Amino acid sequence: MLFIIGLGLADEKDISVKGLEAIKSCSKVYLESYTSLLLVSKERLETFYGKSIIEADRECVESFSDEIILSAKTENVAFLVVGDPFGATTHTDFVLRAIKDGINYKIIHNASIMNVVGVCGLQLYRFGQTVSIPFFTESWKPDSFYDKIKANLSLGLHTLCLLDIKVKEQSEENLLKGKKIYEPPRFMTVWQALEQILYVEKQRKEDLISKNRKVIGISKAGSDEQCIKFASINEFLNHKEVLGGPLHSLIIPSDIHEIENEMLEIYA
Amino acid sequence: MLFIIGLGLADEKDISVKGLEAIKSCSKVYLESYTSLLLVSKERLETFYGKSIIEADRECVESFSDEIILSAKTENVAFLVVGDPFGATTHTDFVLRAIKDGINYKIIHNASIMNVVGVCGLQLYRFGQTVSIPFFTESWKPDSFYDKIKANLSLGLHTLCLLDIKVKEQSEENLLKGKKIYEPPRFMTVWQALEQILYVEKQRKEDLISKNRKVIGISKAGSDEQCIKFASINEFLNHKEVLGGPLHSLIIPSDIHEIENEMLEIYA
Repeated sequence: MLFIIGLGLADEKDISVKGLEAIKSCSKVYLESYTSLLLVSKERLETFYGKSIIEADRECVESFSDEIILSAKTENVAFLVVGDPFGATTHTDFVLRAIKDGINYKIIHNASIMNVVGVCGLQLYRFGQTVSIPFFTESWKPDSFYDKIKANLSLGLHTLCLLDIKVKEQSEENLLKGKKIYEPPRFMTVWQALEQILYVEKQRKEDLISKNRKVIGISKAGSDEQCIKFASINEFLNHKEVLGGPLHSLIIPSDIHEIENEMLEIYA
Repeated sequence: MLFIIGLGLADEKDISVKGLEAIKSCSKVYLESYTSLLLVSKERLETFYGKSIIEADRECVESFSDEIILSAKTENVAFLVVGDPFGATTHTDFVLRAIKDGINYKIIHNASIMNVVGVCGLQLYRFGQTVSIPFFTESWKPDSFYDKIKANLSLGLHTLCLLDIKVKEQSEENLLKGKKIYEPPRFMTVWQALEQILYVEKQRKEDLISKNRKVIGISKAGSDEQCIKFASINEFLNHKEVLGGPLHSLIIPSDIHEIENEMLEIYA
């Protein structure tokens, strides 16, 4: 049996009782570690589960997925995913592989950043499509997120922006040379995302997002150290330290309803 | 301390380890029981938690919220919510009350129908705003969901439709007479929702939703008995039994991407 288990967002105790029981029954435990991160170490998970964990980066998941899936034919194998298995990053391809190979599988759900953001006070049914904001490079500045924020705003809907994470990425140079040397991990902050949004705004000149617009920054969502701030873009850019360390998420609110505002003012 | 704890969607073991530990520390445990339901009985939860549970219907939450919140001043109190505390139904008002009264509170998140629907294979970031479809009555047929589905489709986005639940509702007659006699609970099925959508389509004549359109019906999402079907509206209307018992959810997909389709075909 292949268990695909959501871990929630913060620490080792966010797993469900069902998920923990499943892990205890497994002979192999993989942790997907390239699209998001828990706020605690792998060792802390291992102690809590009483199992050793194989960290699966992008390369490993892509090249060893055969191994992961086939071993589930004869033993119980857990594939752990931060958040929900079908949340911000979907693991559909993995499930499809299991089905094709006739492997029994079971999905165990958990909280995802896509629903936890409701904690800021904005109503989830007033969110439009979620956007991803990737790290710009010198030569690559994709800006489709701007059109999506625009479409949401035109419908009076809020936008959740998921911010880029780079874990075990190679520099272009090392990639070309085939050198497996990895850059230090990078986690996009709310102010970096805002600078990129303003950059696109400056190119497009559509007067969509001004520096006075109030937005919401969240760090360490779902944990005891969670920090939520409701402030203008300018304030975020002038107080870069305000949210503390990663992981960050950004929300661009549309019109704010009264009940939403009452809650947001707490984070002003 | 007031703990507001998400239970997830299916049974007693969907609670997180953190949530279970919190309940064990509480002297009073309330269960919000009017906006959604778990698929297991209150008694099963009580046995698993080793605590007795006070069921809180709408009336109770509204009239006893003082009591619930104030008792959290001196003891640990748990308020349990199916799904996530800030998912389909938000409990913002409850949190605001706690803050005003200076009560310490802690939110413990879980899976919500808003992220679990990703299990059908559609990518969550391709969903637009979520809509609620209420039971029509003779004199009350609100159709704002139609405009929202239309807006989502125009942007190439899928729509999750949350279907109405009526628990401990009074008939208009009993309400007027002040008689606390409750109607049997009702849970909207996918085919009832589709009939209402087609009713609005017939009034509006906008050619938005035809009977040949393929939609996704899900029952008992997140449980072992979960059933997902991908079929035309006509097929759902002609095979009303296909999904089995409640709770149901409906998805109106927009254009379907190849990777999404591969997964959906499994449920065809």
